[in-house]
Amino acid sequence: LQSKLPNVGTTIFTTMTQLALQHNAINLAQGFPDFNCPQELMNLVTEAMRQGHNQYAPSAGIPALRQKISQKTQHLYGHLPNPDTEVTVTSGATEALFAAIAAVVQPGDEVLVVEPCYDSYVPAIELSGGVPVYASLTYPDFALDWQQIEDKLTSKTRLLLLNSPHNPTGAVWQQEDLDALTRLAQKHSFLILSDEVYEHMVFDGQPHLSLLSVPALAERAFVISSFGKTYHTTGWKVGYCIAPPALTAEFRKVHQYLTFSTATPFQHALAAFLDNHEHYLTLPSFYQQKRDLFAQLLQPSKFELIPCAGTYFQLARYANISDKPDVEFAQWLTKEVGVATIPISVFYHDHTDHRLVRFCFAKKEETLISAAERLCQL
Amino acid sequence: LQSKLPNVGTTIFTTMTQLALQHNAINLAQGFPDFNCPQELMNLVTEAMRQGHNQYAPSAGIPALRQKISQKTQHLYGHLPNPDTEVTVTSGATEALFAAIAAVVQPGDEVLVVEPCYDSYVPAIELSGGVPVYASLTYPDFALDWQQIEDKLTSKTRLLLLNSPHNPTGAVWQQEDLDALTRLAQKHSFLILSDEVYEHMVFDGQPHLSLLSVPALAERAFVISSFGKTYHTTGWKVGYCIAPPALTAEFRKVHQYLTFSTATPFQHALAAFLDNHEHYLTLPSFYQQKRDLFAQLLQPSKFELIPCAGTYFQLARYANISDKPDVEFAQWLTKEVGVATIPISVFYHDHTDHRLVRFCFAKKEETLISAAERLCQL
Ligand SMILES: CSCCC(=O)C(=O)O
Ligand SMILES: CSCCC(=O)C(=O)O
Repeated sequence: LQSKLPNVGTTIFTTMTQLALQHNAINLAQGFPDFNCPQELMNLVTEAMRQGHNQYAPSAGIPALRQKISQKTQHLYGHLPNPDTEVTVTSGATEALFAAIAAVVQPGDEVLVVEPCYDSYVPAIELSGGVPVYASLTYPDFALDWQQIEDKLTSKTRLLLLNSPHNPTGAVWQQEDLDALTRLAQKHSFLILSDEVYEHMVFDGQPHLSLLSVPALAERAFVISSFGKTYHTTGWKVGYCIAPPALTAEFRKVHQYLTFSTATPFQHALAAFLDNHEHYLTLPSFYQQKRDLFAQLLQPSKFELIPCAGTYFQLARYANISDKPDVEFAQWLTKEVGVATIPISVFYHDHTDHRLVRFCFAKKEETLISAAERLCQL
Repeated sequence: LQSKLPNVGTTIFTTMTQLALQHNAINLAQGFPDFNCPQELMNLVTEAMRQGHNQYAPSAGIPALRQKISQKTQHLYGHLPNPDTEVTVTSGATEALFAAIAAVVQPGDEVLVVEPCYDSYVPAIELSGGVPVYASLTYPDFALDWQQIEDKLTSKTRLLLLNSPHNPTGAVWQQEDLDALTRLAQKHSFLILSDEVYEHMVFDGQPHLSLLSVPALAERAFVISSFGKTYHTTGWKVGYCIAPPALTAEFRKVHQYLTFSTATPFQHALAAFLDNHEHYLTLPSFYQQKRDLFAQLLQPSKFELIPCAGTYFQLARYANISDKPDVEFAQWLTKEVGVATIPISVFYHDHTDHRLVRFCFAKKEETLISAAERLCQL
């Protein structure tokens, strides 16, 4: 049996979570909260099941949820997607990313990815026969380098993958990035896949600049988001994709054969809960407090923190502590120090190692305090 | 934008369910029960959420559920898959089918499908660059024609797709089919994808003959099943794949980038509920009663029923009622008679039309009675 993905092993998230469990380490590796979702949201799921919403949802998602997503999008970004032709509910953002890539990438097409990047992008491109072309964020401030991106565009570039707020670096793009992208889009015909799953985690008073807020970009983009991140329900696997009708039509063709539809009781619960705007509007300050607490707790440590403008991830340089490669350092930290983390080199195809690890701060105060105690001993 | 799936529209299930809703027809088209799942199972979901099981499950599935699947498999088919290396929980059987195909089909590989067949198989093959090769079940008894299958095998045949109990025909394979397959497998090196999602709906005292019960077949097969069919929870989208370690390794590589993991609260609930063997052991008689009731109710009608040995689908020939092509007949039946159904020609690549439609009898008695009243008027 010849592997279709010879360079792929088990994802780093699985690997580090397993290692954390084995060594009873505090898991700041995989990105998920260690607190529960709102009780009201769970009650709504129970109620939906009781009402018999346990059979297939429509493949595109239940109408009520698509409607609410559409309204929220208009409210936040001034863009009103048509719920019937431009919004599709998916089994997590991961499925949405896969479906968008599978829908438009033909064998031989180039897809530009900007590293470091989430580990599902490149395998999804390869399974469609696409050719990943790599640009990278600047170092050490992890900004988009538009000259480099433009230099890598060719007549074969089918798709440009972008992500803000950015996992794993915590960088967020600025208005000038959207302007630069708009200029490129005028000159080239690539489509865009915009991973915005951390849209509600942008800090310091900045708004999230969605690609949907720029009509010239929205008209050629798949924009992906996730209820898992927003509602502390990463395990419910409900995400969505907003795209213009022609792109949505192709996206849905793939989606209907990938998973067909997404868990019905969750869809009903989320549709009802989306009336509660309070929750996601207070999310930036909720997570900013955690970011700030974690930074303050690590102040006495030898870690150097990279400024985090969004997401629930904090990058830290450990060069003052160890000269191990980052994968080794992360394993050592898990086994010997009892704090699991994600090494950043796994998000570069050539394993660029800046001696950085990523901590997830979507955790209870007591978890962050215990982890910091251990990290400050180094 | 050049479509990757130019021949694909909206699935027949979506189309017919929408038409049923529009015309307020009784929906015997898409396969799902119109009654609720066991209350205890819903209670277990509520309890799992309350306990905080709302974050990512392990990508392969929670250990408890994989363990229970493994035990149940041994109990039923005498094969004990290793839960760590041979069982993977997926977001519905549809995801499992897609992942298995994407894991092993390389561009140019031939994949043998036996028509009529479920509509996701061929698009999944095409998205992997595979070449579908079509065999067909015999007509009118829908048996496997092993000579024909053998004649279509070539050195390029990577995968053979099989399905029993069979959707849409209701046929089930017999011991001699497994014997014939075993002989073919000795001579050829194809892998097998066995769709057994209706494993608990085999009637008239016959057992389900799982491919897993034959070691020489299990060692080269992906066997797919679905909790949705078994527990009346088609909308929860929890399925699974059993395959030997080398195949499971490749399967999981794809699965981790397709959806990463499957809804956590449902996995906990199903793991607990699987201790209740009663439920699935009584399923054959539960559905056999519905099959028999529906057949009896249609006795006075002009439909000719094809014997149904398994699944919750009843094929019916309507040649005595109309000479419309089956797609037209199904639309007419929905709009004018108020009973939605699935035309069978959509499951053949060349739209072979035997003047057959499929009725789903996974419905309450009163639903079957109302539908039959309308159908008997023709
Ligand atoms: C799907 S597991 C990974 C979760 C995540 O997005 C991350 O940790 O980066
Ligand atoms: C995924 S919708 C189709 C359900 C089904 O398996 C069928 O009706 O054949």
